[in-house]
Amino acid sequence: MQAGEGKLTLVVIGVGLIGGSFALALKRAGKVGRVIGVGRSAANLERAIELGVIDEASHSAADAVRHADIVLVATPVGQMARVFADIAPQLPAHCVVTDGGSTKSDVVALMRTQLPQQLAQCVPAHPIAGSDLSGAVAAQYGLYDNRRIVVTPLPETAQAAAALVRELWQACGARVYEMSAAEHDAVFATVSHLPHLLAFAYVDMIVGKADGERCFDFAATGFRDFTRIAGSHPEMWRDIALANRDALLAELDGYRAALDSLRDELASGDAAALTARFERAREARHGWHQKFLRGNA
Amino acid sequence: MQAGEGKLTLVVIGVGLIGGSFALALKRAGKVGRVIGVGRSAANLERAIELGVIDEASHSAADAVRHADIVLVATPVGQMARVFADIAPQLPAHCVVTDGGSTKSDVVALMRTQLPQQLAQCVPAHPIAGSDLSGAVAAQYGLYDNRRIVVTPLPETAQAAAALVRELWQACGARVYEMSAAEHDAVFATVSHLPHLLAFAYVDMIVGKADGERCFDFAATGFRDFTRIAGSHPEMWRDIALANRDALLAELDGYRAALDSLRDELASGDAAALTARFERAREARHGWHQKFLRGNA
Repeated sequence: MQAGEGKLTLVVIGVGLIGGSFALALKRAGKVGRVIGVGRSAANLERAIELGVIDEASHSAADAVRHADIVLVATPVGQMARVFADIAPQLPAHCVVTDGGSTKSDVVALMRTQLPQQLAQCVPAHPIAGSDLSGAVAAQYGLYDNRRIVVTPLPETAQAAAALVRELWQACGARVYEMSAAEHDAVFATVSHLPHLLAFAYVDMIVGKADGERCFDFAATGFRDFTRIAGSHPEMWRDIALANRDALLAELDGYRAALDSLRDELASGDAAALTARFERAREARHGWHQKFLRGNA
Repeated sequence: MQAGEGKLTLVVIGVGLIGGSFALALKRAGKVGRVIGVGRSAANLERAIELGVIDEASHSAADAVRHADIVLVATPVGQMARVFADIAPQLPAHCVVTDGGSTKSDVVALMRTQLPQQLAQCVPAHPIAGSDLSGAVAAQYGLYDNRRIVVTPLPETAQAAAALVRELWQACGARVYEMSAAEHDAVFATVSHLPHLLAFAYVDMIVGKADGERCFDFAATGFRDFTRIAGSHPEMWRDIALANRDALLAELDGYRAALDSLRDELASGDAAALTARFERAREARHGWHQKFLRGNA
């Protein structure tokens, strides 16, 4: 805490959509006093200061965390090993470390390797607010209103550390859920990582077709929505896929089995089985969408 | 033609989004005089008259076409065999028959079976304006503005018949393309039918999972868009899948091969291959979307 203020000093490592919006929300909620942004791009940090997303900029994560009460590591997961290693020697004993990565088992493993003496301070988390936007200009007030945050504390995590992270996300307007890192990764392999792979594979398949250009010419709104996530960031999704490889391989195998059985139904002209499958899917999709609309209303 | 008017009498068999919007557009364009709607639901036909979509209603396709200049069969493809059989004996020699089905090889086959003496009058077509809406209330002005229509004339189709269908769709504001029924079905298997099957299979796979409910709880906007088409009409898509079975089986096999190779890349941790695949997909998706936005602007 900063003396006389009662407000936390927040260090955001990686000032983009996720980290920047967290800072903006916590400032508005009066939860943080000073925000120090850390990043490699001087231009991005300057822009972040101009936009009021951060108060100070630093190129050194180690320097920045020395006076921190809470650190959010919002870099791509691929950079987190280095970030954790950098901050480990300078991290104050009371300071809580959380992250914004889309996969959690790998982040937990990195924390165990790089912050083995500080696991009580570690609270891995995944704010579900994906977007292709990047940079400080993407930071926005209200990004987390009513969004879901999954926290996956370690067995070693101190209750108070987990409670602080929950409190801060709630102050951002988010709904906080807790599960194990393995449970998290299985769920997100299913509902997020697998569909990204399916969409990438689908669009890439058309690229390889002899009549691919003509196919694209006649693609319409169903194609547009189905393939939107194939426009996602290649390196980010490569990292997510590799980070969550085991869960994702299991999902791919399950999906292939489903496709094989659908193919059999189609090949044998089993109209009843096709109808039943499509009806189950439509009913589930409809029920999900109603709930999703209510949840985001 | 109706004497003294120079306007065509249009019979729409199946008065819903596709047929009703065609009637509205042609009335506004001054291309048709009288519109007779044919359907099984008296309530729907009454509503269509109230809404000004049709001028007269009939439960008998055979009766209705006796004074027709142009007939649009806009029923599900599964009903077209009966419709073609019904109208065959009563079809005036000058009357052009077209349809709005999403598959074309099967419609061509039905025309060959049911209208063998009238193939010169037959112009199969596919207006690309899919929607889950149904019934006369779904009919709307402007539905076809800038939309694509694929016509797939038979070798036997008279030039004048094809020209009339093109002219009418252009009068609706649509852009008309021509290809063979087989080419059409291959293209739409790729860009429309396959993704519907992939989305149905994906959502249904989650339904079958032990942690399916929790998965749905954490599904977000990427899931929402990817699965939108899994909310499509089960019977309609069963019919489309079966009607375009051969092309669709080939697509499913191609897609499985693509998934298998992606799985290999993931299993072996081939980051470069994953990145290259995702980049090809993103670039193609981005290029497609820019073109799509321009095309629909």
